[in-house]
Amino acid sequence: MQRWKLTLEYDGRPFVGWQRQDNGPSVQQTLEEAIERLSGETVRVHTSGRTDAGVHALGQVCHFDLEKPFTGLKLRDALNFHLRPAPVAVLLAEAVPEDFHARMTCLGRSYVFRIVNRRAPLALETGRAWHVMRPLDAEAMHAAAQVLVGRHDFTSFRAALCQANSPVKTLERLAVERVGEEVRVHAAARSFLHHQVRNMVGTLELVGAGKWSADDLRRALEARNRSAAGPTAPPDGLYFVNARY
Amino acid sequence: MQRWKLTLEYDGRPFVGWQRQDNGPSVQQTLEEAIERLSGETVRVHTSGRTDAGVHALGQVCHFDLEKPFTGLKLRDALNFHLRPAPVAVLLAEAVPEDFHARMTCLGRSYVFRIVNRRAPLALETGRAWHVMRPLDAEAMHAAAQVLVGRHDFTSFRAALCQANSPVKTLERLAVERVGEEVRVHAAARSFLHHQVRNMVGTLELVGAGKWSADDLRRALEARNRSAAGPTAPPDGLYFVNARY
Repeated sequence: MQRWKLTLEYDGRPFVGWQRQDNGPSVQQTLEEAIERLSGETVRVHTSGRTDAGVHALGQVCHFDLEKPFTGLKLRDALNFHLRPAPVAVLLAEAVPEDFHARMTCLGRSYVFRIVNRRAPLALETGRAWHVMRPLDAEAMHAAAQVLVGRHDFTSFRAALCQANSPVKTLERLAVERVGEEVRVHAAARSFLHHQVRNMVGTLELVGAGKWSADDLRRALEARNRSAAGPTAPPDGLYFVNARY
Repeated sequence: MQRWKLTLEYDGRPFVGWQRQDNGPSVQQTLEEAIERLSGETVRVHTSGRTDAGVHALGQVCHFDLEKPFTGLKLRDALNFHLRPAPVAVLLAEAVPEDFHARMTCLGRSYVFRIVNRRAPLALETGRAWHVMRPLDAEAMHAAAQVLVGRHDFTSFRAALCQANSPVKTLERLAVERVGEEVRVHAAARSFLHHQVRNMVGTLELVGAGKWSADDLRRALEARNRSAAGPTAPPDGLYFVNARY
């Protein structure tokens, strides 16, 4: 038996999310079925972080065990063949020791959230970025975002359905930059609460629009109450970038 | 009567190309119908450059005349409303003098061609980039590309169906750069022959793969024979970037 680590790219649009659900195709099911078609083995795939419906990945990580022997190159190419035409690509397949666990041994996750900030609707980036029409001040967003960096109780940015034991997390990085008409929010932490990145981005948008100050953001954090923070940004702009081990 | 200049973004995937055709939706028809729904006027839209099926635009330019008065902002927003859900967005609508002509007064056009150069298939960029699996040397491609810059007879890079009077064109810029796993080819000229960019890119790919030298490229150019150059790159990676007046 060999444990395999995969690095994945996927387009979140056609999926109900990472996790298997009854109401539509998931990345997990798509991948487990491709593995079964390839190997004849029924496996359970574990991910470093479950993404919601519509959320994309540039470098998601998952693991599973196979009896049948493969090389990493062969496994990657064969899985990509069996994944077609689903928009999921295996970028890398690596043999790892059996104490590797995509979720439990992960030391850090990072996301990027893309906002296209312009008046005109999206033609090329529909479903792949959040379209914000009102002008955003990315520098003000970045300055305010530093309020959230560090170890805090993130209850104000936590989805009602979040299953984490504790709302206390350490946010390692929250950086906002403007690249042309795009505003990008980079977030890194050991782990995140459910909807935490989207809730932080939805609140930072209020700062960018000049509706909120950095002090308003600090008060929202300190309130430890979801209703004190801003709205949840749509999944379209969110990309899982990588998992560190 | 007012002449209007539009700057457009579009996703080329669902279209048979810019030009009206019987076999499917075109950007031209989509736009002319949106203008008619908005104004009640039947207009003919002229573009700076007809793009082929599957070719995208970041800043295509076109013009048309309207009797009904508008402001630029109002025309842009109203056209975007009437264009939904087609993946065509009006970035800018500007009133221009009646001697403006999107094609005939255009002083320069530029394109970018995106190659994703990796083993794994595309998940997020399907239809939006050319997937080349074998490793490409972007520096060798850039160096060889300079053979094509300047005033030349581009018969070797001209589609059989090209309607231009002369195969002689002045290529102002052909630059190749690597950005991570992406190889981008930037091309600028007053005007291009039909399929010229895609034929140049398809030939440069041979250079990048080490199959052709810069001298081979020079001989292909000098042969003035389409069969002497490389294959036509797919439309997926081609973006019309802008038109200069």
